[in-house]
Amino acid sequence: MDSDTIANIKTLAIDMIKCANSGHPGIVLSASPILYALYKYHLNINPNDTEWFNRDRFIISAGHGSALLYSTLYMCGYPLTLEDLKNFRSIKSNTPGHPEYGVTKGVECTTGPLGQGVATAVGIALGEKILESRIRKDSNSKTQKIIDFKTYVLVSDGDLMEGISYEALSLAGTLALNNLIIIYDSNNTTLDGSTKFVFEEDIHLRFKAMGFNTYKVNDGNNISQLNIEINKAKKSKKPAFIEVKTHIGYGSLLQDTNKVHGTPLTDDDINQLKDKLKISKEPFYVNETLRRDLIGFIASRVGDKYNSSYDLYNKEIDNKLDTKYQDIKFYFKDNIKYDLSKYKWDIDKSDMRDINKLVLNKISREIMEIVGGSADLNSSTKAYLDYQDDITKNNFNSKNIWYGVREHAMGAITNGLALLKFIPFASTFLVFSDYLKPAIRMSALMNLKVIYIFTHDSIFVGKDGPTHQPVEQLSSLRALPNLTVYRPADLKEIVGCYQSILNNSNPSAIIIARDKEERLKNTSVLGTLKGGYVIKENEDAKVTLISTGKDLVTSYKISIVLDKLNIKSRVVSMPSIEIFLSQPKEYQDEVLKNKKRIVIEAASNTSLCRFTAFENVISIDSFGVSAEPKDVLKHMNFDLESILKKVIEIVNKN
Amino acid sequence: MDSDTIANIKTLAIDMIKCANSGHPGIVLSASPILYALYKYHLNINPNDTEWFNRDRFIISAGHGSALLYSTLYMCGYPLTLEDLKNFRSIKSNTPGHPEYGVTKGVECTTGPLGQGVATAVGIALGEKILESRIRKDSNSKTQKIIDFKTYVLVSDGDLMEGISYEALSLAGTLALNNLIIIYDSNNTTLDGSTKFVFEEDIHLRFKAMGFNTYKVNDGNNISQLNIEINKAKKSKKPAFIEVKTHIGYGSLLQDTNKVHGTPLTDDDINQLKDKLKISKEPFYVNETLRRDLIGFIASRVGDKYNSSYDLYNKEIDNKLDTKYQDIKFYFKDNIKYDLSKYKWDIDKSDMRDINKLVLNKISREIMEIVGGSADLNSSTKAYLDYQDDITKNNFNSKNIWYGVREHAMGAITNGLALLKFIPFASTFLVFSDYLKPAIRMSALMNLKVIYIFTHDSIFVGKDGPTHQPVEQLSSLRALPNLTVYRPADLKEIVGCYQSILNNSNPSAIIIARDKEERLKNTSVLGTLKGGYVIKENEDAKVTLISTGKDLVTSYKISIVLDKLNIKSRVVSMPSIEIFLSQPKEYQDEVLKNKKRIVIEAASNTSLCRFTAFENVISIDSFGVSAEPKDVLKHMNFDLESILKKVIEIVNKN
Repeated sequence: MDSDTIANIKTLAIDMIKCANSGHPGIVLSASPILYALYKYHLNINPNDTEWFNRDRFIISAGHGSALLYSTLYMCGYPLTLEDLKNFRSIKSNTPGHPEYGVTKGVECTTGPLGQGVATAVGIALGEKILESRIRKDSNSKTQKIIDFKTYVLVSDGDLMEGISYEALSLAGTLALNNLIIIYDSNNTTLDGSTKFVFEEDIHLRFKAMGFNTYKVNDGNNISQLNIEINKAKKSKKPAFIEVKTHIGYGSLLQDTNKVHGTPLTDDDINQLKDKLKISKEPFYVNETLRRDLIGFIASRVGDKYNSSYDLYNKEIDNKLDTKYQDIKFYFKDNIKYDLSKYKWDIDKSDMRDINKLVLNKISREIMEIVGGSADLNSSTKAYLDYQDDITKNNFNSKNIWYGVREHAMGAITNGLALLKFIPFASTFLVFSDYLKPAIRMSALMNLKVIYIFTHDSIFVGKDGPTHQPVEQLSSLRALPNLTVYRPADLKEIVGCYQSILNNSNPSAIIIARDKEERLKNTSVLGTLKGGYVIKENEDAKVTLISTGKDLVTSYKISIVLDKLNIKSRVVSMPSIEIFLSQPKEYQDEVLKNKKRIVIEAASNTSLCRFTAFENVISIDSFGVSAEPKDVLKHMNFDLESILKKVIEIVNKN
Repeated sequence: MDSDTIANIKTLAIDMIKCANSGHPGIVLSASPILYALYKYHLNINPNDTEWFNRDRFIISAGHGSALLYSTLYMCGYPLTLEDLKNFRSIKSNTPGHPEYGVTKGVECTTGPLGQGVATAVGIALGEKILESRIRKDSNSKTQKIIDFKTYVLVSDGDLMEGISYEALSLAGTLALNNLIIIYDSNNTTLDGSTKFVFEEDIHLRFKAMGFNTYKVNDGNNISQLNIEINKAKKSKKPAFIEVKTHIGYGSLLQDTNKVHGTPLTDDDINQLKDKLKISKEPFYVNETLRRDLIGFIASRVGDKYNSSYDLYNKEIDNKLDTKYQDIKFYFKDNIKYDLSKYKWDIDKSDMRDINKLVLNKISREIMEIVGGSADLNSSTKAYLDYQDDITKNNFNSKNIWYGVREHAMGAITNGLALLKFIPFASTFLVFSDYLKPAIRMSALMNLKVIYIFTHDSIFVGKDGPTHQPVEQLSSLRALPNLTVYRPADLKEIVGCYQSILNNSNPSAIIIARDKEERLKNTSVLGTLKGGYVIKENEDAKVTLISTGKDLVTSYKISIVLDKLNIKSRVVSMPSIEIFLSQPKEYQDEVLKNKKRIVIEAASNTSLCRFTAFENVISIDSFGVSAEPKDVLKHMNFDLESILKKVIEIVNKN
């Protein structure tokens, strides 16, 4: 009966791909027994309550297996219709080409770019440990745990070749995340051909080196073998890795070749496959009995656990979220509003990183969902919570995460934490934001509330030289849809940024200079909340200077000089372009005012150019050099004197 | 005597850091015996001829050890003065904060961003194998090899935590690059603290899993132990990994703590250190006898090999570079000019990727320096040389490199090949250019002639959905200084791009659509060589439409419709903004002409906005969706009809 249901999962997915004329049959035919075994026999899930707080998470890191995932979800009774399957990869369907979080119920994470899913899963597993430890310290229940879910991941060869997977799994090993089970669809074949040309690792040795227990299933079509090894993995005291030997495109005429990876099967191939599988040739055929049986089996296997989970929650937790369990409230309640206006900001630090740190420390004492860390740079970025311990394999009841020198995994793990409704921060130097850009893109695609804290802004970094001086990163981040980028100028703007960041639903990046704060009289929290605002007004102004971050002081100083030269000017601070552009048009016009506008920003292709003619942009369009910051600025014609000269040239030009 | 010289290397570097008031003493004091042993006893180098074609390469992947490298180079007689050391990290010095290729003789690779150096070294080792195999197949010499150098890399904990290092070293293992020796400065300490919180891998097991032989030096201060293990590594039939146990900041009062990683030592600490080392306290003290002895020792150790290397070259190779050895000519001769005008382009393919492939195949048959591959996507990007075999561990005399699903390592390995004067190409989908962005930045910083081929342009990708549809990547690439970005519209422009790319000295990215070519009458190779040019002129034009790549056809079609509506228009193709901006101002003005310009480009924050007011830019500013391309375009208001409507609105507005 197992094999008949698996056959039906396969043919549905194969028909979806055929109907869409696009998709990946290879993994459907290799990995369907794995998904079937997991959903039927192992995952603690309730297809009728896909948001159950203690459900096991399953992530298909090999996101090109979307058709397989959807057909499995359908057969398990998740809220998907046969019509949905027929609309695979079509406009406005809930069955997109790669799994998308928030689009399909049962999809726990957007996947497709290889390696992201498995690294995000490490974040979910870490988050579970934190939640569990917070509940455990207060809980009366000795027998049943309120949170004790596992995270299962299906990975492909590609996932395991991607650097991000090593980074994340190495950390998972160090933290001994035994709630994490990696299942490897091992078929020796990738898009281009055999793995023997590119991937000859001893995979068990590798995972042992990283602190995993490893298991092997020699025949990926053998459900009882699968169950035996999965059961062992569930009891492992370390994170678990199961290699499942499979055949790509199993049963297709193209079985065991790379040709079956990403092209729909021919009609002939589908016909012979359906013959082999002894299943009706009718497209999208569903054996309703088998489907009903599978749904019933899962319901009866998980029913008790599900019901007692809510019973326990209602008895133990629900009415104590504001008292005993306030540090896990965020996990159970939505739409929390954050108001920072109650805080007093008597901060005596002057370095922008210290100011950012103090703000972060202060607000996170009450906002328990804030956790985070840096990629081995907390001494430099100062994104660290002083009042808290560090998370280690022996202590998850804390907030400081040590990522090691693993920026990319930090990004994805951060996404995993946000999927559990934490508000995680992740920090490194701005120039190294490149290392985690693919993960930032996933934050934006999944609309996760993540805070990226990037310090060491621009060529001001100085002596460490061009490898450490960001130039183009600001522009790259601003080009990313659904990421809100902040570049605050001082304490007041930093506070405004966090007020905004916490109440956004989407990810944010806040850029912090490694420099002394020069506080300006007219900057404000309220102005910051509008994204852009006037800090120096002049009714008769001939020119408006627009700047952000550290450059705002430069614009302000230049404006003072212009006054003396009788060139009347205004100054606009624009800590967040995205927020500013969401203001009413009238407000935007009022702030921008003059036609003659000059943008001053220490970055290349600065996106502020949208507010002026390109020839009125004063920016940095080449790499910096290693030297004292003041020498760098001079060398790059970005010292006050050079900028002033350019401003006057522009003013006089037209 | 070894220890005295090492002491002098240490104190010079410590004084440099003190004098610059910035730098990294930790690695100076841990790893100086390693560098000393390598330069004195192992590296085949000639400090007087830093370009010797068969020199061993040493790369300090832990680039924050720059002071150590410079002081070692100085003591070995490389062209560096004491004054240079005193100017460490100062403006216009040749001793920048992190090692920079092209700035300091003896620096083989720019390093600093962790992981890049070691991955680039894999590229150098691979390049050596290719060169060696090309020479060997033709050489008469049975005894001495003309090319047989080794690549040594010093790595830190940080390098080994970075995903790129796993990617590159896994491939090095698969390719059995036994000319590669990785030396690990293993001191259990990173910038933020002990590695025990973040990095508990069994490092020998990891490297064994990847196909390396591993060795261990228990006392990193013991030169004879170092020599014994390095000698074993040199004979290894597999790539070699040597763990050297050291103490960060050895001898400092802060020894074995993270505090000594990146802050200059105090005066007291320097004094007690110099006492311990029994060396003069005079800043920048040099024991000239020891220096002379070291220089002499290296000269006499390497002299014969160096001389016979050139003898053999002169006898065997030099006058046969145009005949027998033409496939290695590029390695020995500079300033090669490339002229593609001799080719006939009778291409019958219509997919842009196929056209790109045919051009690449045709030109690379004669241009032997072109080698390359993709990150497991050659079936899709079609960047593959059909007439050649694949490079495997048993065959390096070829041109097709299989990188596996390892974009980031592909970028760095490509840089390593370019450092050996290959013209390497590297290919993946445009959306995954994010995965290798940090390596592309290194190409640009080092000014390496690398060709990045990014296909599957924009939302036209369709059904694979937003994870596979690039939106912001074009803008990110264009924001990177010293990268020339091309987005050709058809065959003629592709040919023009390659003509330009090959004769640039800097890296290039060429963006290719996964779509049928729609060839336009007036596109041209010559126009492309100017970066931007008029493809539809109209003396009375009211508006100029500017587009690139696939969008050019859209602009052209809209222009035809506008004609019918009696709105006279011109169309400009802008395959490369960077090239266009390098043209004389008069030419630029002639091309751009009308004040009223509309930019049409399917990307976010499109950098073409520099040519018009921002409100006249028609672009894509959010993520796409999974659907048929035509449905995606409609949904994103980027179908012909929607664009036309916007164009007319803009024309009528002012």
